[in-house]
Order: sequence, then C-alpha cells, then structure tokens
Amino acid sequence: MKKVVTFGEIMLRLSTERHLRFSQANSFLATYGGSEFNVAVSLSNFNIPTEFVTAVPDNELGARALEEVRKKNVGTNCIIKNGKRLGVYYLETGASSRASSVLYDRDDSSFGTINANTINWDEIFNDAQWFHWSGISPGVSQNAADICLEAVKAAKEKGIMVSCDLNYRAKLWNYGVAPSEVMPNLLKYSDIVLGDIDTACLMTGKEKINPDYNNHYSLPEAYRYFLDSFPNIKLMATTLRYSVNASHQKIGGVIYDTNKTYFARLREVIPVVDRVGSGDAFMGGLIFGLISQPNNFQYAIDFAAAACCLKHSISGDYNLVSIAEVEKLINGNEAALVAR
Amino acid sequence: MKKVVTFGEIMLRLSTERHLRFSQANSFLATYGGSEFNVAVSLSNFNIPTEFVTAVPDNELGARALEEVRKKNVGTNCIIKNGKRLGVYYLETGASSRASSVLYDRDDSSFGTINANTINWDEIFNDAQWFHWSGISPGVSQNAADICLEAVKAAKEKGIMVSCDLNYRAKLWNYGVAPSEVMPNLLKYSDIVLGDIDTACLMTGKEKINPDYNNHYSLPEAYRYFLDSFPNIKLMATTLRYSVNASHQKIGGVIYDTNKTYFARLREVIPVVDRVGSGDAFMGGLIFGLISQPNNFQYAIDFAAAACCLKHSISGDYNLVSIAEVEKLINGNEAALVAR
Amino acid sequence: MKKVVTFGEIMLRLSTERHLRFSQANSFLATYGGSEFNVAVSLSNFNIPTEFVTAVPDNELGARALEEVRKKNVGTNCIIKNGKRLGVYYLETGASSRASSVLYDRDDSSFGTINANTINWDEIFNDAQWFHWSGISPGVSQNAADICLEAVKAAKEKGIMVSCDLNYRAKLWNYGVAPSEVMPNLLKYSDIVLGDIDTACLMTGKEKINPDYNNHYSLPEAYRYFLDSFPNIKLMATTLRYSVNASHQKIGGVIYDTNKTYFARLREVIPVVDRVGSGDAFMGGLIFGLISQPNNFQYAIDFAAAACCLKHSISGDYNLVSIAEVEKLINGNEAALVAR
Amino acid sequence: MKKVVTFGEIMLRLSTERHLRFSQANSFLATYGGSEFNVAVSLSNFNIPTEFVTAVPDNELGARALEEVRKKNVGTNCIIKNGKRLGVYYLETGASSRASSVLYDRDDSSFGTINANTINWDEIFNDAQWFHWSGISPGVSQNAADICLEAVKAAKEKGIMVSCDLNYRAKLWNYGVAPSEVMPNLLKYSDIVLGDIDTACLMTGKEKINPDYNNHYSLPEAYRYFLDSFPNIKLMATTLRYSVNASHQKIGGVIYDTNKTYFARLREVIPVVDRVGSGDAFMGGLIFGLISQPNNFQYAIDFAAAACCLKHSISGDYNLVSIAEVEKLINGNEAALVAR
Amino acid sequence: MKKVVTFGEIMLRLSTERHLRFSQANSFLATYGGSEFNVAVSLSNFNIPTEFVTAVPDNELGARALEEVRKKNVGTNCIIKNGKRLGVYYLETGASSRASSVLYDRDDSSFGTINANTINWDEIFNDAQWFHWSGISPGVSQNAADICLEAVKAAKEKGIMVSCDLNYRAKLWNYGVAPSEVMPNLLKYSDIVLGDIDTACLMTGKEKINPDYNNHYSLPEAYRYFLDSFPNIKLMATTLRYSVNASHQKIGGVIYDTNKTYFARLREVIPVVDRVGSGDAFMGGLIFGLISQPNNFQYAIDFAAAACCLKHSISGDYNLVSIAEVEKLINGNEAALVAR
Amino acid sequence: MKKVVTFGEIMLRLSTERHLRFSQANSFLATYGGSEFNVAVSLSNFNIPTEFVTAVPDNELGARALEEVRKKNVGTNCIIKNGKRLGVYYLETGASSRASSVLYDRDDSSFGTINANTINWDEIFNDAQWFHWSGISPGVSQNAADICLEAVKAAKEKGIMVSCDLNYRAKLWNYGVAPSEVMPNLLKYSDIVLGDIDTACLMTGKEKINPDYNNHYSLPEAYRYFLDSFPNIKLMATTLRYSVNASHQKIGGVIYDTNKTYFARLREVIPVVDRVGSGDAFMGGLIFGLISQPNNFQYAIDFAAAACCLKHSISGDYNLVSIAEVEKLINGNEAALVAR
Repeated sequence: MKKVVTFGEIMLRLSTERHLRFSQANSFLATYGGSEFNVAVSLSNFNIPTEFVTAVPDNELGARALEEVRKKNVGTNCIIKNGKRLGVYYLETGASSRASSVLYDRDDSSFGTINANTINWDEIFNDAQWFHWSGISPGVSQNAADICLEAVKAAKEKGIMVSCDLNYRAKLWNYGVAPSEVMPNLLKYSDIVLGDIDTACLMTGKEKINPDYNNHYSLPEAYRYFLDSFPNIKLMATTLRYSVNASHQKIGGVIYDTNKTYFARLREVIPVVDRVGSGDAFMGGLIFGLISQPNNFQYAIDFAAAACCLKHSISGDYNLVSIAEVEKLINGNEAALVAR
Repeated sequence: MKKVVTFGEIMLRLSTERHLRFSQANSFLATYGGSEFNVAVSLSNFNIPTEFVTAVPDNELGARALEEVRKKNVGTNCIIKNGKRLGVYYLETGASSRASSVLYDRDDSSFGTINANTINWDEIFNDAQWFHWSGISPGVSQNAADICLEAVKAAKEKGIMVSCDLNYRAKLWNYGVAPSEVMPNLLKYSDIVLGDIDTACLMTGKEKINPDYNNHYSLPEAYRYFLDSFPNIKLMATTLRYSVNASHQKIGGVIYDTNKTYFARLREVIPVVDRVGSGDAFMGGLIFGLISQPNNFQYAIDFAAAACCLKHSISGDYNLVSIAEVEKLINGNEAALVAR
Repeated sequence: MKKVVTFGEIMLRLSTERHLRFSQANSFLATYGGSEFNVAVSLSNFNIPTEFVTAVPDNELGARALEEVRKKNVGTNCIIKNGKRLGVYYLETGASSRASSVLYDRDDSSFGTINANTINWDEIFNDAQWFHWSGISPGVSQNAADICLEAVKAAKEKGIMVSCDLNYRAKLWNYGVAPSEVMPNLLKYSDIVLGDIDTACLMTGKEKINPDYNNHYSLPEAYRYFLDSFPNIKLMATTLRYSVNASHQKIGGVIYDTNKTYFARLREVIPVVDRVGSGDAFMGGLIFGLISQPNNFQYAIDFAAAACCLKHSISGDYNLVSIAEVEKLINGNEAALVAR
Repeated sequence: MKKVVTFGEIMLRLSTERHLRFSQANSFLATYGGSEFNVAVSLSNFNIPTEFVTAVPDNELGARALEEVRKKNVGTNCIIKNGKRLGVYYLETGASSRASSVLYDRDDSSFGTINANTINWDEIFNDAQWFHWSGISPGVSQNAADICLEAVKAAKEKGIMVSCDLNYRAKLWNYGVAPSEVMPNLLKYSDIVLGDIDTACLMTGKEKINPDYNNHYSLPEAYRYFLDSFPNIKLMATTLRYSVNASHQKIGGVIYDTNKTYFARLREVIPVVDRVGSGDAFMGGLIFGLISQPNNFQYAIDFAAAACCLKHSISGDYNLVSIAEVEKLINGNEAALVAR
Repeated sequence: MKKVVTFGEIMLRLSTERHLRFSQANSFLATYGGSEFNVAVSLSNFNIPTEFVTAVPDNELGARALEEVRKKNVGTNCIIKNGKRLGVYYLETGASSRASSVLYDRDDSSFGTINANTINWDEIFNDAQWFHWSGISPGVSQNAADICLEAVKAAKEKGIMVSCDLNYRAKLWNYGVAPSEVMPNLLKYSDIVLGDIDTACLMTGKEKINPDYNNHYSLPEAYRYFLDSFPNIKLMATTLRYSVNASHQKIGGVIYDTNKTYFARLREVIPVVDRVGSGDAFMGGLIFGLISQPNNFQYAIDFAAAACCLKHSISGDYNLVSIAEVEKLINGNEAALVAR
Repeated sequence: MKKVVTFGEIMLRLSTERHLRFSQANSFLATYGGSEFNVAVSLSNFNIPTEFVTAVPDNELGARALEEVRKKNVGTNCIIKNGKRLGVYYLETGASSRASSVLYDRDDSSFGTINANTINWDEIFNDAQWFHWSGISPGVSQNAADICLEAVKAAKEKGIMVSCDLNYRAKLWNYGVAPSEVMPNLLKYSDIVLGDIDTACLMTGKEKINPDYNNHYSLPEAYRYFLDSFPNIKLMATTLRYSVNASHQKIGGVIYDTNKTYFARLREVIPVVDRVGSGDAFMGGLIFGLISQPNNFQYAIDFAAAACCLKHSISGDYNLVSIAEVEKLINGNEAALVAR
C-alpha cells in the first residue's frame, strides 16, 4: 500500500502528574507528540504505511524524538537534523471544572527554522497516496508556512489526496501574520478539511456564521457557505464535542461531502484521562476510514468518532488502539467488560 | 467459630499504572490475588476464620505469595510447595470507553500442576463449616478440576456447606475439555451458586434462556429452569451489574432461595478504581451474610451488593472493608462525608 | 492594603496515593496544611497581604512548615517556635461510595501547647483589616481556645473585621469541654460566620432546627432563629454541598445578611481530586469577595462557591487558583477547553 | 522448638527517598520497625519460632503494624491494643560525609503507655527458651522500664536465657531518670549483653575506660572490668564498626565469654543502602548462632557479623536474609556474582 | 555496510527498584533484553547495521518487545510470531556484599519453542557479514539448540564471520542434555569465542585447568590448551572481572589471536548501577572493534573493555554509549567532569 | 546585618532519575537552580540576609521560580518580570566511569534578555555589604554581560565587597565574543575571585601556566603570576578537586591572600549524590567564612571546602546544610554515626 505522509513538529511534552498544577510539580512526565505525528501513529496502528516529515536537533532530545517515531513504526526516512532545540510544551492536566492548560516553549525550534527548499517533496511523494498537514505548522513560523505551501503544491502536482486539520491555536500565530493571510492559499490545495465552520471562517477571513450542529437539516447550508470559497475541498468533517467539564465530554462527528451529511452518534466520555491529541485521533480515524472504505462515509465518520472517543482514555499525545478495538466500540459498547 | 475453607490459585498480578496500556508500561504494580483467595480475605476482614488451600513454588515469588496470605490473616496451614512457577496475570486497567484487559501467563503453574490425592481434604474439613470454590479452578487444568471434585465430595461427606462462584473465564478452559463436561458433576456437590443464569447454562450445557433481571415476577421461573437440573442447589445468587462504561457501573444483586427472590438495590459506582475482584467481594459478602444471619437472605444480598460496590473503590484484587463500612453503606450513603 | 490575619494550626499531612487505603500504603505524600493557613494561602493567591499566626517546633518539620508558609507568600512574622512536635494528620482519599478518612495525630502539638499571653495580638493587629479564625482551634486544646479568645477580643478592640468558619470536627473536642461551652463566647466577638445552621446550633447549644436550604423563602427565618442569639453577627454564609458520593459533589452557597439571602448556583464536581480544604477555599473566596467588593454580596457568594468548586480539582489542603480563573468559572464554564 | 520472645516498640518509620533531606521530602516511604521486632524478624527468617510482645493503638496504623508482624511470621498472640498512637520516627538517609538523621515522634505512644501488670509474662514464657530486650525500652518511659523489669524477672524465674542489646539512644531517656538509675537492675537479670564497653559503663554508671578493640590481648581485661559488676552476665558481644563515612563502613564483631575472645573478621560495606537495624541484624544473628550451635562461639560471632554486614544492603529496619546467604558470606564473598 | 545478525531470546525483565529484595517489591521496572539482543543494540549504537532473529508471541507483550527492537534501530525483519508467551526474568539488584539474583520464568517461551526449519537462514545471511550467537540459546531448549546449529552451519556456508559468547548459565540446561553434549558441535562453526578458559572447558567437556590471567606469559599456553580442540576458532577473548563486591568491580579484558595476547587495562567500577548485560556490552564492543579496525586487536580489546566498563553505569540490559564516549574512556578518564 | 546581593540566572532543571541516560527518561525531576542563586541559598541557610537579582517570565514557570527563591528565604524584591521564557537545563547524572552531562536550553531566556539600565543597582546596594556574580552571566548574552558591568561598577562605587566565581562553561559564550574580551574588564571591579589559575588565564587571555596545586611552596608564585594583571583582587580561592570517577571525588581548597596560602585538607566523597552546585556551595561557604570571621582565612577555606564536600550528598542545585553541620565536619568526621 502507498504511504500516508504527514508533516509537522514533534515536541517533548512535559506534563504534570495526578492533575497537579504547574506550581506543584516536582517532576514532569516526558513523552513526545505533535498533531501530525499523532495522526501518523494512529495510521501506523491501523496498519497503514506512513512517513513523517519533520526536523529534530542533533542532540540527545532530538535523538530521543527520532526513537519515538521509529518505535511506533512510523517512517523516519524524511526526518532531517536542523537547528538547535526541540520544541517543548508543558501540560497541566485539569479536572472537573478546571481546564487543562498548555504552556508552549517552541520558539526557534528545529522544526520552525527549517529553510525553504530543504525538503525534497517530489521524492517523498513518489511512493505516497496521501498528504496530511494541519493549521499548526503555518502558525509556528514563516518558514514552516512556506514549507507547507511547497508541500501541498507538490502533492497536488502528484495528484495525491491532501487533508488538513485546521487546528487553530490561539497561542501560536505570533510571527506577524494572521491565519487569514496564510491559510486560504494553503487550503486551495487541500481536498479534505477537518474543523468546525466557525474556525474555518476565522482562519480564512470569512464572516462568522453560527451553524447549529444539532440541526441536521440546516447544517449542509452552513458547510456550503464555507465551501463556496473553496470549491476544491471535497469533504469537510467536524468533531462534535460537547464539554460538560474538563473530565466529562460528549463526542460525535459529522462529515459533509458537498451534498450530504453523515453523523456519528454522540458518546459520553467520563472520566477523561488525557484529552490532548483526541482531535488527531479523530483525524487518524477519518483518514483510515476513507482509505479502507473510500465510498463509505458513514464508516469513516463512525470510525473517526469512536477512535477519538477511545483516545480520551489514553495517556500521551497519540492514540493507541487497534482497528478491532475501534470497531468493537462502533458496534456497541463492550468496554465495560474486563477482557479475560 | 469453624473455618471457611477456600481453594484456588493465588497469582502475581502485574498491573499498569494510571490507565496506561500494556505497550506504555515502564513498570508494573505487583500485587497478589486470585478469586478464591480474595473471598478468603474478605471473610478474614469480617472476622471469619479462614483457611486457604493452594500451591506455590519453592522460590521467592512463592514465598512472597505466602506472606500475602499470612499478612491478611488467612490460614496458611494447607498451602503446599509444588511445581515450578507462580501463575502470573497482567492487567491493563481501562477507563471510560476502553475496557480493562487481562493477559494470563499461568500455564504450568504450581497450582495447575498439583497432583490428585496430594491434599488431605478430610483433615482440612475437620474444623470447617464451609467450603468455597469457583469455576476458575477446573478451567485451569485437568489436575485442578480433579482436585475440585475430590474437595466437593469430601466436603459433602463431612456435611459442610459448599458454595461455588461460576466465574466463567473465556481465556481459560484450554486444556481440552469444555466447562459443560466438568462443571455439572462439580455443581452436584454444591449448595450455593453465584452466577447469572445464562453463564450457568453455558457452563453446564443447558440451553440458554434470556431472563429479564429487571422483571421481578418472571425471574423465579428462570432460576427454576436452571435449578431443575441441580435440585441440590439450595440458593442461587446473581450480581446485577449494568456497565455504562469501564469507569461507570451500577451494582445490585439478587438471591433466589428456590421459591423467593431478594433484591439489593442498584448503586452507582463512578469512577471505578479497580473492578477486578468485585465479584469475589460480592461472594465474600454473601458468605458472611449467610453465616452471620443464616435466615436473613435480605441481609445477605444487601451485604453482598454493598461489599461489591465498595470493592470498586479499592486497588488490588481483594476487598478491604470492615463490617461497619459495609453496613454504613447499606444504611444510607455516608460515603460522601470525610470522616474527621 | 492592610493585612488579613489568620490564626490556626499548620500540620504535616500524610496522604495515601491512588485512593489506597491506609493498610495498603507503602508511602505517604507529604504536604502541609490547616484550615486557617489554607484561607491565608487563598487570599495570598488573590493578592491580599496576609499574616499567619501559629507555632511550630524547633526541628526539621517545623522548619519545613515555615518554608511552606513563606513559599506561598503568606506572612511569617508572627510564627513562633514552641513545643515539641508538629501536628500530623493522615489522609486516606476515598472514591465513589467509599468516604475519605482522616486520622489525627495532633495531640500535644506545638500549636496546641502555646501558652496564653504569648502572642502580642495588639501589635499583630496594628496593620490588619481582618482577623479570621475557625472552630478547629478551640477544639484542639484549652490553650488554643484561650488564645482564640484573646485574639477575637483584641481584634474587636482594634475594630477590625472578624470572621469565623465553624468547622465542626467530631474527632476533636477531646480535652474536656463541649463546643457549646466555648464557642458562644468566641462568636460574640465575630462579625461573619461560615457554617450551616444546624452545626451552628450544635456548637452553641441551641436547639436544632431543620432548615430547608432549597427553600429560598423559608431560609431567612432559619438564619434569624440562630442569629437572634448573636446579634453581633452581621453576615452568615453557608456552603451548599450535596454529596452524591465521595467522587461526585454539587457545590453552591448562600449568604444571609440579616435580611436577605444571596445564592450561588449549584455546580457539579466530578471527579473530586481532593476535597479536603474546599471549605477553606470557600472561606478564602468569601473574604476576598467581601474585601474587594464590600457591598456586592452576590459577587462574594459567587466567588466563594466558584473558588470552592475549583478547589476540588486541586491536590493538597489549600486552593491554587487565580482571581481570573475563579471569575472565568463564574462567567460560564470554560473549563472544558484546553487553554492552548 | 521453643520460642524466642522479644519485647519492644514497633513504630511507623517515615523515611525520605534518594538521600533527600527532610526539607526536600514530598513523600515518605512508610515501613515498620523497631529494634526488638527487627531481632524477631531476623530469627523468623532463620526459622526460629518467635513471639513479639508489644502494644499498638486500635486504629488503622496499629492494625497495619500488626499485619507487618504477622506477615513476617513473627508471633502476634501477645500484642495488645493500648493507648492512642503508634510511635513514629522520621529517617533522613545520609550519604558520604553527611550522616543519617532520626527524628523521633514517639512520646505517649501505645507502647510507652502500657500499664504495669498488664502483660502476663508467666504465660508468655511457658513455651519460650529465650527472652530478648534492649536498652531502648527503658529509655522510652517509666512504664516501659517497669515492664522490662517484670519481664526479665519472670524470665529468670522460668530459667530461660535473657539477652540484652544496650542500644543507647541519646535522644531518649527524657522522662526524668538516667540510664544508670535503671539499667543496672535490669542487667542483673540478663545473661548475654550486646554493646561496647564504654556504652555499657555509661549506661550503668561505671567509670569509662578506653578499651582498644584492635588489641586482642588487652581486650579481655576490659570486658572483665565491666563484667566484675555483673557476674550474672555470661557472654558479652560487641559489634566492631569502623565508619569511614555514612556510605562506607567496616563491620566485624567480638564475643567475650568470660575468659576468651572470638573475633569475626572485618568486612567492607560500600555503599550502605540502609544502616538502620544493622545492630539488630547482628543481635538476631548472634541469638541464632547461639541457639543453633550453643557451644560454637566462633560460629555465633561469624554469623552475627556476616548477618550485620548483609543488612547494610537492605532497605527498611529489619534484615531479610536466609541462613544460606549468611553462611555463603562467611565462607567467602560470592556476593559479586549474579546468581543466574 | 553489510549487517551483523544476532540470534537469541528477548525477554521481559522485571527488576526491583532501589536494591529491594524480591519479597519487598510492590512494583517491578519493566524493560526488555536478552544477551544477543543486547549485542545488537550495542552495535546499532555504534552505527553498525543489524538484524535480530527471534520469536515473540502474538500478544501485547510480544508487540512491545518488537517495539523495543525497532526503537533501538535494530532490524526486525526476521522476527517471527510464535508460541504462547514471552520469556520473563525477574532481577533483584544486589548491593555491597549481597549479590544480585535472577529468577527465570522462561520455560515454553516463544523463542524456546520455535520449530526447526522455520527460519530461512540462507536468505537472512545474504546481506550479512557476521553472525553472533551465545551459549544461552542452546541452554534454553532442544529446539533452540537445533536452530543454533542450522544457523552456524548456514553462516559458515556463506563464509561469514561467526562469533559466540559462551555465556554459561547454571540455571539453564534443564531440558535433559549437558552443555558438553551440544556446545562442541556448535563451536566447530565459530570463528571467535568470548569466555574464560574454565567455562570453555566446562561447556565442551574438556578437563579444567587453572590459568593465571595475571600471568601474561603463561596465558597463551592456557588458551592453546583449549583451542587445540577447536582449530577453527581464530580468536578467543575473555573479560577480566575482579569482583570486590556486588557494587565494586574491576574490569579488563584479553584477546588471544592464536599466538599473541592483547590486554586492556583494568578499570575500577564503583558503584555498579546495573551489571546485567555488561558481558554483552563487552561482546558488542569487541565485534565493533574487529569490524572497524580488523587488524587492530589492541583497539578491539580496549574498546570492548571500556564499553563493558561504561555499561555498569547504565540501567537495563543493553549498553547505551556512543563510539565517542567509549573512546573518551580509552583515552583517559574524563568521566569525572560534568559536560557543560 | 547588611545583605549579600547575588546576580544571575535561575533555571528550571530537568534531571533524569536513577542515573538514567536522557534517552531512557520517561520523566524528569523538576528543580530550580543557578550558580548565583545557589550561593544565595547557601548564605540564607547560614543566616546571612540575601537579595537575589534576576528576571523571570510572567508565566507559571516564572512564578514557580519566584516561589523557590522565596521559600529558601532569599530576598525577592529585585526580581523583575521580563522576556518570554525561563531558561532550562537538562541534567543526566552519571555514575562511575560515565560523566554527568548537561544540555542547555537557555537561549533567549528572561535573564539573558534583560535590557541594560533596567536594574537600579544604586538602590539595591544601599543596604548591601557584598555583591557576588559569576562568569556564567557574561557568557549568556551581551545584555547579561553589560548588566554585570553596571553591577560591579555600582558596587565598587558604593565600596562594597565584590566576589566572582569564574565558572567557565564551554557550552556558553556563543553570542560572538570570547571570555577574554569581557572578563578582564569585569574582574577589575572584583575583590575576591574563585577559580583555578588556568581557567583564570583562559578567561582573561593570559598565557596558560601549569601550577602544581600539591606544591605548597610553588603555588604562591603561580597566583602572583595571574594577580599581577589584577592588582585589585585581594583574595583568590581555588577548589581542589581530584576526580577519581563521576561517583568518587576528593575535595579540598586553597586561599591565596596575596602573600600566603591557606589549605583545607582533602576529603573523600563517595558516592556522589549530586555534584552540580558543589562549586556554588564552596563559594557560599567562602563568603560566609569571610563575613563571619573576616580575618580568619583558615576558617574560611575550611568552611568552604567542608560545605562543598557536604553538597555532594545533596540532590538539587543548591546546598542544604547548617553552620553546625559544616563545623561538625570540619572538626572531625562524625557523619558516619546516625544521629538518634
């Protein structure tokens, strides 16, 4: 099978234990993750060959990040050594009415300082069927935004599928441009977009509307409103997330394929073990569904939502479930029985 | 007071921490447990004298298992040294929509390789009022099944009470016989059986029916259907468990005494700290109730269900609550107040 | 801004991890807390200058307790060296239907053995606007009760505000007097009291009534009944706590200002990370609200209840939230979104 | 075989991890120990039946201490419930040039407040061959000193062997008497004493001498000097400890049997894992040696010194080695080979 | 560069922390290792391409073992799924005079039950320059011994270098044959052997001699004595290990190339962090040295001994040092300076 | 007493546990330190009033760093909020022949980006008797170097004592200048310098000599050689460190007061718990000695060396010993006795 290529930053994540606040931490759990890497791991777990394009520094933390990619059986052939530091983010895991909080320390990271024309996209895409990127990368630095554009253009030239998770992060986009100055041009080269309509409008400079995600009848119109500006986008998917509190969520999803909506039913998640990366788990599930059953959008959205749901029970950035486990959840909740 | 004797395997349990998946574990918590040992610990906590019959290897892990039995004030006089290895099971504790998972590594264990006629049941039962076994033991090996039969026969000859928890485990019964070839003969010598009717039918080869546990009127008929084949069984009890997800359960119970049902009211359990052994906590509570108030079946089922409920809040295989704590829960939930 | 002075015991708290029972603990987490210290920390987090009056022993644990006070930017000028031991309390954190449990080991502590006339209250209150004490201190020892009386009298002479959290603890009051012999005299010198009406009656020897906290119309009458005996009390506040189980609470609050009630809406707390000190978080929020917006009782009760609610998500005795975080919760639950 | 009875306090030990200072500790390891209990555990490991006489409070920590005794297969029949608190000691484990440090919090403990005539020594000694006590107990409280006297008198009446470890602790003896007012009377009823000569003089009020433990020729004279006052003492043993630093010790030993000295060769101990209880390991080894080979004093001192040496590698108060392991060390150091 | 292929078992290693004895362990650190895998990891760290041939079960532990191989950049193409369980070994890390201890639980493992003719050695060796095996594999089971023979024969047919670490383990060889019945035939196909002469004699049935490793003059004669029977062996190397105690070792090494000895100087190792796998680190260093500078035996032995020395500072089975770090140690001990 | 002011960076230190390599770390211990802060903590422990001048970011990590300063009773009045990130350094603690390793991630930190003329040194020094800086600060950035110069000039104008620890760090000095371009000008305003002569030459551009620190006679000449260029320097001190390996050091010290040398005797340190900050402990001891006994250079060097020695037993960057503990070590090693 041809590969799915993802491009993005892999960071050291330093998280507090036992819901401790940053000020209480005498130690941090050290794991590695990043939105587009997380998607690649999901796909690798679903037996899809993958290649992850990124940069790490030539030091011990860079080497460790590389080991993490290799360990999860994600391709490492396109990881370059660059720059001086691995991006870091600190995570304080909330509970109940206290939200989780992220403190980024990723300025001037290896990923953010890759020079344009460093990556040979043409070669990378030779053996690929799909390219995935997210709105985080162009939010990191001008360099990263430039390389995103190189990538999506090259992908489209090769005729491979391009997916984008909008992934708006308010704490990024600090290098002097607004998302709306960058994203529209990138989205022009994308086929599938994950994100809610308001975020999509915000990142592309379109006027905000207020779609009612519970209204199955009015929703297509809202998607059409946004997609009018991006006729190239063939499919738009949205995670439906209703947050009761930081420990209690309800997760569903919807796909709009330019004329029809497909819904995954809402599932309760309580308690949340680790919410970070649940959107990436959704994205990974979506790509898997669309690759394995290309014309079955109902399967894709069901798989994406169930994978996302399961991710909330798993520590760390990336999902760790098998196709069988996702399908078991789709087919009825047997999670409650100890498998023995 | 005369002793309650239980017979079964004690294993090393290696469990992941913080809901980690097996693949994420850099360490395992090491505790010791096993269904019939867990029942003995419950009874010991309720001040009932106990004796636990098992085998452990003559190595450091066997010695440690023995220490565990002694520490919980369960009798160790009938524990023999046998075989080469202590059975092990790995436990991955699920959360929310992800189920817990057990990986057995118990083949050729000390317990499973005890030879027939090794244990002097006659002597063991001299000072006993009750013998408890479960459907796990005959599922482990032919040897263990044979010794179960020795035990129940000897118990019946001595005229002591025999209870059985059906405890069906799909991952056992690998040694070449089906439960239905073994269990009927063992159940013939048992007075009290814990298990739901479908499991009972499955393990005895009876055709499955679909009792509605919410229908208090139809339930006696369902019990009668099964007990028709086992007129010796005087009492059948069932844990009523409604699993919302791996972290959220509802627990009740029912006793059928050949002509009447007694129900314990459903209680919500959220979050589940450790579900493993909750059935054993139910069994321990049931035996205690029946011993301390022999004719008060309502007390027995209330005590069993409340003990089971509390077990979900306790790490490790066995329950760790006092009579007073169980009765406090029966008499109204004061669990919410800090005792200070 | 003038200081808020609090007086009470600071203890070493030894708590079990992962909901373990005392008998399972192979280690204890060591933190430091105590009701009135916790209130001071809350206020310090809200940028109110504070001074904490207490005694610690002249040993390593006393020095460590002192460091804790200093670290949280609470004033340490009035902490004396006295006696031989730091009070200790052991905490077993419950879950679901199993309540948390506290084991006090605080007899003959440095705090409980301070001699009368040791503390120069007159000097302490020179720079103060508020004095806070709780019903724990007079329950510890006769010495502590005597000093409480010195303190409230001195405070009233200086004309500064005096608040009291009734904080009834059944496991205290062992030194030979009943609360009702001590508290009425202390409450005479207090302006603001936190506690429910029944506890207030119990601790002052008034006949118990059964107010219906859900009945907004009848509640003022119930407050009036109690306050008839304490015309000096200008404001009475009550935490409204509905405990579903040890992990699931609903938290609200009410202020009665001698002719009107102000309610904070109920919020669900699930799961509870650490409930101990949530009353102190309420008290700290209440004092902050009353200091920052003296005539806005609705703000005070909203702030107190939201601070209390957030405390349930935080390990350790004292609250660790900012004004902004409390106000965010008051203005709508955004806790569910990861801040990134 | 008849039992060895020991009498003393069992305490909760709270120790810092990783050589942290008390001020750095965010948690404490919780274990249980006490000199005379440690001796009993050593003997139990050497397959000698034992009985430990002590008192614990009727609370969770008392119950846990009791479990510890039971777990190590030490007799619990003579443990009484008494008083209000379990004695506690805090341990900071030093390293290199920084000494370990102990902070006692054992005033008014269950053990220290046992009333005279509470313990039926006559019955206890019926099945005993040996009674062991140490100089810690009479240093704890007048009550404990009184009961020690009851015990040694009763033991001598029964004609059983009495051994004493002098165990001088400068931080005890706070209740108003000096060791020299108490110990001579107790030592009158003892047959075997462990301790160095200077400590023995200090605790009995004899003028100090300066024996040269390296001078095999002069040493008997020094022992005779002390034993002149205690003609009842048949055997005196001394641990020879040369401390290079807190992590590096040299351990040997000597027995003087009223006319001859027997030396165990010095062994290097580096690094020290846990030194606390190494004297008790020596004592346990000595008693075992004298019981198993009554006339072979060389074996006794070799066994005691080797057991002591091994204890330094073991965390916690009590030794955890088998006869075979001690004898392997006596017969040549094979410790350096991994047993596999 | 062509690959080095190693063949052996990879096991789950469960080790106690902080020098705890097995009986004290409440948790085990979980790592993965095995002699021949450890050699492959060393080589991978030294940038030599490797392939590891083994079998793992088709369960979560097998998958995790596979991840470990992949993570360390060791080739996984020849790892098969076989059998029912991953071999396990428990490790108690000693200290000072207490030796480390290993408890094997590897009977009937996936590796030990591979059937003959399952592995296509011919294909595996197509791209290989070197094959390494050890005396552990034929000690595990008849199957493993048979496959070893297949492998060395196939390697010799391809003309690639074969190295063997004798690795005598007293706790293996339980399946009914002695090493001397199996090893001679295997060593006939080996070019380089690591082990001391006595072990070599023991495993091949030759009469034991007592070579003096400190006598550089007599040593060649001793090697010749053994190699007389194995003229095919071109090079024999021995780790020189002088064990002061479990925490203090002296490490050197010697190569004998059929007419000359090359010595690496002794280095002190204190303290030992983890000794397990230090022989494998030696072997890995030896192979690296011989591959990178084929005719420089002095470099090879220096590199092997220094790598071995460094391994003692590293937790887990396999070595984790770079060429630069080994060479730094060879060229003078700079280990004492913090690199900053 | 007037204050000692120190100026430098406080960083988050993320260190691996149990001597793990960076690649093995699944968590990092989080502590806070920095050379000049460490000196201030030492002095605070010795009851000297201190003020620490630095900058931290306005985020949770900055707030936590500030708490650390406050907790150790070091003055926080001159700590400013500046810039975007707290400097971080990762520490891998070596053992035996493997050196510890530091990975800096401190570029663009709050400290390194303070603007010149931001700090009001004149006001800070009003209440000061001493100013301490180190060669780390000018190695961080041009800004930091500029502020160092402001500080030493202002200090000299106020006539207060200025001390400097040369603290050469090869991994710093990356901003485009060599130490020799910056340090000479800074040292002109310093009275006391800590460092060895070769480092002093390196950092000031003087030709290197090779003093023999063991030759008490020749040493003064070597100091004179360096001090010829810096006649303002009244006292030069050097830590004498002989590193056997990463776990075994020998520590002494020497002061040269322009015509005489004073030596502290060498002490063995084994094992090393944490070497980082031992130079700062030396510096702190030196300043304390010179302040408390201004004319007793022998006391100063003895105190400095003993404090340094003790630091090796303490985890974290800064020393945690009392005057009494240091003096106990000076007066003879009693470290080997447990204080109880």
